[in-house]
Amino acid sequence: MKGFTLWFTGLSGSGKSTLAEKIKPILLERGRNVEILDGDIVRTNLSKGLGFSKEDRDTNIRRIGFVCHLLSRNGAVAITAAISPYREIRDECREMIGDFVEVYCKCPLEVLAERDVKGLYKKAMAGEIKNFTGVSDPYEEPEKAEVVIDSSTETIEQSADKIIRTLELMGYIKGSEDDTGYSQDEEEQIKARLKDLGYI
Amino acid sequence: MKGFTLWFTGLSGSGKSTLAEKIKPILLERGRNVEILDGDIVRTNLSKGLGFSKEDRDTNIRRIGFVCHLLSRNGAVAITAAISPYREIRDECREMIGDFVEVYCKCPLEVLAERDVKGLYKKAMAGEIKNFTGVSDPYEEPEKAEVVIDSSTETIEQSADKIIRTLELMGYIKGSEDDTGYSQDEEEQIKARLKDLGYI
Repeated sequence: MKGFTLWFTGLSGSGKSTLAEKIKPILLERGRNVEILDGDIVRTNLSKGLGFSKEDRDTNIRRIGFVCHLLSRNGAVAITAAISPYREIRDECREMIGDFVEVYCKCPLEVLAERDVKGLYKKAMAGEIKNFTGVSDPYEEPEKAEVVIDSSTETIEQSADKIIRTLELMGYIKGSEDDTGYSQDEEEQIKARLKDLGYI
Repeated sequence: MKGFTLWFTGLSGSGKSTLAEKIKPILLERGRNVEILDGDIVRTNLSKGLGFSKEDRDTNIRRIGFVCHLLSRNGAVAITAAISPYREIRDECREMIGDFVEVYCKCPLEVLAERDVKGLYKKAMAGEIKNFTGVSDPYEEPEKAEVVIDSSTETIEQSADKIIRTLELMGYIKGSEDDTGYSQDEEEQIKARLKDLGYI
């Protein structure tokens, strides 16, 4: 089957990596090769020396996009879980890759600051971390993400179902025989979104 | 089938890219996904800002190796055609990738300087290019390359046959039904090499 890129974007702590790890075994089970490119792996292996200025962040995201492009066009599923804050660069990657499914992990800043799993928001708000997305650096919401999940109101299972069902409807993976337990309302919502975007 | 990396190494003009382009359609015909990572593509997309010092060259080759690693373990064939002058870094990539077939493109410096397709050897010998491999920068020959080709004595067809036959014998691609026209002597040589290296 055709390769594609599943591009997660959203603030730190919004659930990108957790969802990526949740989705990976489901895609493996359906016979796909899957590679998760998280921000840290890429910074170590492809972007050592780059910092967190706008320019360096853009370069880092472009490199992730290039590798996703190579993996996708060779039949694999590339999953990225980098913040990727700037719309222009994400859209540039979408353009290059073609088979590109954007998942916007939405979550109100208050909820993220409240959770603050890694203690980063506290530091950022105290001015101890510069260029922290959502606090001291901008995050530009996607306008046409194929999937929008909200980790403040959905369970991880619900978000994962939404992604998988979208991939099925877009023809990137075969439907599962199992009953996903997804309600008719939710199914309608997913279809409406894909119709809006012109996919179905 | 299993992915793998076909790693060409050798001086500028020794035939790496030409052979990579010759091999690609043969592998595509046998149903493989193939990606050629040549030095220029990688310098543009993954290594902008790096120069030609030992350290920067090592970083560039490590990045190529990392991408080959990702492609190979997702079932694709990654082909590199970068000079990759240092043995230690090539062996580090071999270690990381595992399914690694090294092709040493040998060619005497005199022949390369005589051909000088891009006019680079003349410039390098006149001191106009710094860090030019083989002239003002070292090239370390591989000690255990799976294939050694010599573009000063072989035709490109002979070299390509040698590579394809090696891949067949190593189990990376299925044998072709066609008669390759490869002589028994040559077949013996390939087998002897793979036996020496412990593959068969």
